[in-house]
This record gives sequence, C-alpha cells and structure tokens, in this order.
Amino acid sequence: MNEFELIGLLTAGLPCNDSTILGAGDDCAVLDLGLPDRWLLFKTDAVVEGIHYTGTTDPAKVGHKALARCLSDVAAMAGKPVAALVTLGLPRAYDPKWAQAVYAGMNELARRYDVAIVGGETTTVPERTLLSVALLGTVDKKTCIKRSGAVAGDAIFVTGELGGSIHGKHLDFEPRIEQAQWLAAHFSMHAMIDVSDGLAGDLRHITNSSGLGAELLAEAIPVSVAVRKGSRPPMQAALEDGEDFELLFTIPACEAVALLDAWKLQFAGVKISCIGRITKNPGFILHEGNRTRDIQEHGYTHFA
Amino acid sequence: MNEFELIGLLTAGLPCNDSTILGAGDDCAVLDLGLPDRWLLFKTDAVVEGIHYTGTTDPAKVGHKALARCLSDVAAMAGKPVAALVTLGLPRAYDPKWAQAVYAGMNELARRYDVAIVGGETTTVPERTLLSVALLGTVDKKTCIKRSGAVAGDAIFVTGELGGSIHGKHLDFEPRIEQAQWLAAHFSMHAMIDVSDGLAGDLRHITNSSGLGAELLAEAIPVSVAVRKGSRPPMQAALEDGEDFELLFTIPACEAVALLDAWKLQFAGVKISCIGRITKNPGFILHEGNRTRDIQEHGYTHFA
Repeated sequence: MNEFELIGLLTAGLPCNDSTILGAGDDCAVLDLGLPDRWLLFKTDAVVEGIHYTGTTDPAKVGHKALARCLSDVAAMAGKPVAALVTLGLPRAYDPKWAQAVYAGMNELARRYDVAIVGGETTTVPERTLLSVALLGTVDKKTCIKRSGAVAGDAIFVTGELGGSIHGKHLDFEPRIEQAQWLAAHFSMHAMIDVSDGLAGDLRHITNSSGLGAELLAEAIPVSVAVRKGSRPPMQAALEDGEDFELLFTIPACEAVALLDAWKLQFAGVKISCIGRITKNPGFILHEGNRTRDIQEHGYTHFA
Repeated sequence: MNEFELIGLLTAGLPCNDSTILGAGDDCAVLDLGLPDRWLLFKTDAVVEGIHYTGTTDPAKVGHKALARCLSDVAAMAGKPVAALVTLGLPRAYDPKWAQAVYAGMNELARRYDVAIVGGETTTVPERTLLSVALLGTVDKKTCIKRSGAVAGDAIFVTGELGGSIHGKHLDFEPRIEQAQWLAAHFSMHAMIDVSDGLAGDLRHITNSSGLGAELLAEAIPVSVAVRKGSRPPMQAALEDGEDFELLFTIPACEAVALLDAWKLQFAGVKISCIGRITKNPGFILHEGNRTRDIQEHGYTHFA
C-alpha cells in the first residue's frame, strides 16, 4: 500500500463540523471560525532524520526546511502564515547545541515572514531526531486558491526551476508566500498547489481533483541545472523529483501574457514558466520535439 | 539537561507577532486573530511507541490517548476544541489495519466532542510508530484560564483521582472539557492546568508562574486505588505519577463550599477534592498527620 492509498483509507469518513470548509486533501485544511472576511488555514508537516535530512545536515537548515515546508503549503492557497508550534523528537542522549541551532534556523525564517513560534514540545524518539511543525494562517475568503478549481483551456504555470532539489535546494528553498499573494491579488487564479511530490504527481493532484487532464510542452519545462548532478534523464528528474516547493497553478489563457510581463517587473529574481494547458480530456500528455507521449510518472511517493 | 531546562533554552527569544496573546509556557498557546469575543487556542502533542504506549497496546486506545491529551490541554484553559490535524509516523513495513484502528479510536473521541479531523500526513519513522496531534480550539476572552492567575489564599482543587495512571487510565481517560467549561461559567477561576506531569510538578507550574507557594493536606489528596498496583508509597505516587489528565485549579476560598455543593449535582460520577491552599510563601508544604514536610518532588520529567 503506498502513501496515497493509505491516506485515502484513513481519511474516509473523518469527523467534520460546522467550521470545516475543506478537510483532508488540499495543501492546507480550511476552517471558518467566524471571521468576516477570512478563513483559517491549518497545516502540519514533519521532517525525519535519515528521510528528509541526515545526521550531518547543518541543523539551521533542518529548522529552516521544517518550517519552510509548511509555509510553502500556506503559500499554495495564497494565504498568510500567522503562528507555528514545533514538536522536536530527540534521542535520550542529544546535543542541546544541535536543538538550539535547529531553532535558530527556524526562528530566522519565521521572523522574515512575521510568523510567531508560540510553543510546542520535546519528546523522546530513541533512534533519530525528527521535527514536526503545525502552522496556522489566514486567507481572504475571495482569494483562497484550491487544487480543484482548474478549467479546461487554462494555462499552466510554474515558478522557479524543477528537479535535482536533493542536491541542496530542499534544505534552503524560499517559500513562495509573497509571489502567491501577489498572484491572487492580480490574476484569476483557478487552481494552485506547491510542487512537493514532483511536477507530474502534483499536476495530477490538480487535474484529478478538477476532473480534467493536461498537456505539457517539454521545451517549456524549466529544468534545474542541479539535475545534471543526478544520473537520470533531466526531463524525468524535472517531472518526478520531489521537494521543489515551487508554485504550480492555472489561470485563464487570456491572462497568460499579462502575467508573464507583470511578473518580470515584480519578481526579477524568480523564474516563471508557462508549461502547458489544462484539457477536457482526462489524460496527461507531454509534447517533446516531434513526439507525444503519455505521462505515467506519478512523482515521488513515500512508502513506495 | 532535563526536558524543562531544554525547553527553557529553546523558548528564549522565540519570534512573536501581533496575534500572540500567550506563547510557550501554558497548556495551549493563545492567539488573537480578530474575533470579537474569542481567542484561538493552539496545541500539539505527540505519543511515541515504547514511551507512551507499546506495540501491543490496543490501537484504538493509542488514537484515543493521542487526541485526548490535546483535548485535556484545551480543557485546562476552559476552551472548546474545534479541529485537529494528525501526523502518523510509521515504519516502512506497517499494518494498515493498525493505522485504521488508531484512527477509529481517535474519530470516536473527536465525534463525541464535535472536533473535526481535517487532515494531516503520514511519514516514515523506521523504528517505531508515533502519532502527533495538532489541535485548534477557541476560548471566551473573559474566561480563558491561565496557569499564572493564582492568588494567595485561593483554595486548590483537583478533579478525579491521582496516581497509578500507567495501570490503565492513561489510555482511556476522559478529557475534562465539559467540567472545565462549567467551572469557568460559574466560578471565579484564577488558575488552571491539567495534571500531566504529576500533581507536585503541575502545581509547581501554577505556583511558579504566579510567584506564590502552596500547602497541601495529604488526607485530602484523592489517591487512586490503582496506585496499589505499583510498588511506591501511595502518597508519592499521587504526587509524582504522570498522565492523570485531571484538572488542577484555584478559586477564591470563599467560593469553595458552593463549588463542592454544585459540582455534586452537576457531575455525580466525577470526584472533586479541595486539597489545600495557595500561600504567599513560595515554598511547597505537605501536612501529613502531625508532620509537615517540604515537597521536593517535581513530578515526572521526560529526559530525566
């Protein structure tokens, strides 16, 4: 059973209540607690030694990554992060300096986005360290961007570059909070997700939840130079590698040129690429030179 | 370095922002997100196989315990729980039936208190299972009960019975949500905490944060019959055993008799005991028969 099958099993029939706008299945849960214009965003994410970082990873980067992953999920709904709680799992013999350095990396990122770290806990995990972050944010009810809003004909965009994140970016990426809020304020955002499981897998989350398909143009996919450090074909790496933490979104095709122009003025240091379009046909096609092929890649799957 | 020393180190200088009413150091973090009459309560808590349960524990009880611990913290501030996210750590070879049974136990408790389970994630932890719950609640601004509000002369109360929780109660205790809300609605609650680290340790959290002391009457402390299953003196077990998850609180002494009378009518099935009083002197004294002794016990300390 892979991660998605297990999650499907566990999330069937979960309890909900009057506050639940969106439960399991999007980048964040969405809750209505009675604020007039805003919903709450609620998210948790864990990083585990040996899986998401190693015993020799710079601990400040471990702290940065743990919080940045959650911030990226709030960004993917065009939200504003507010406050976080941190669970730190430590072996019985631990180095307090390591824990302090983890917090230093996390606090630095938190301050940059005005996120309060309001507590948490330490707990014993004998064999390896782990770090779980719970994040609370808010989002304007009118510009909360789900995965499920794509429309046939939409242009598909992705920020930054894809693939090879394991060679460094996965530890020090910048969550696209600012870009997502700007996008939501200026364009008709239909669907958005952050690329954490790989472009192919995450685009499939958008098309499946929207009941649609997609065609991509290989030449337009922004392949990171970091993929050259790996042994796989660059296009496969760009489609399948996890932990890119870029924004993947769809907007009406008629707004595509205006977006490209405005973006360059606003975010000169961050790439933006129009990589394809949403189709009525539920398939998933890649145009590569003269060839057209079905994409079978599902992106990185935990428990595979 | 013990757990409290480490937490002191990590929580020094945490980032906060305009939303932060109460950061690290109470049962829950308290946030103001702009609701007119209510604050948000935010809490995370983890249970780990081999520490908080074993590989042979009924998985439904593992799920119950994981959520109930967070509910108990919301109760300790007289709050109402709203929604939870669940992080499930699983070895690579895991039993989906175990995970489903954990969720069944958690969902049953969640439904009883109208708590929505709005998602979460699964992650790989190779050596042992673990379960971390993030909980969101709300509390009336006028009746949010902190640890720090005790006043010299206050009567000290505790619900239920103390000690020996390890013999069963730690897996199937009922969080005192209903009782705490009733208390806050009818009495001048000064300070409250849930007994998770042991009576001695948790009362010290109240007295330290209030800058006061306490004297307890040994005969009044409700020692659980379960302590007889252990080898330690019953009074020591009642003072030091962790995971009782009862409410420990202080109110003006003049309301003590009215509380005892009203409680019996309201919650016939749950014991309530007046066990002592808050003193100006910062010491911590136990009157036991003709003897008076200083309490040195700190309650259960992780990483001890």
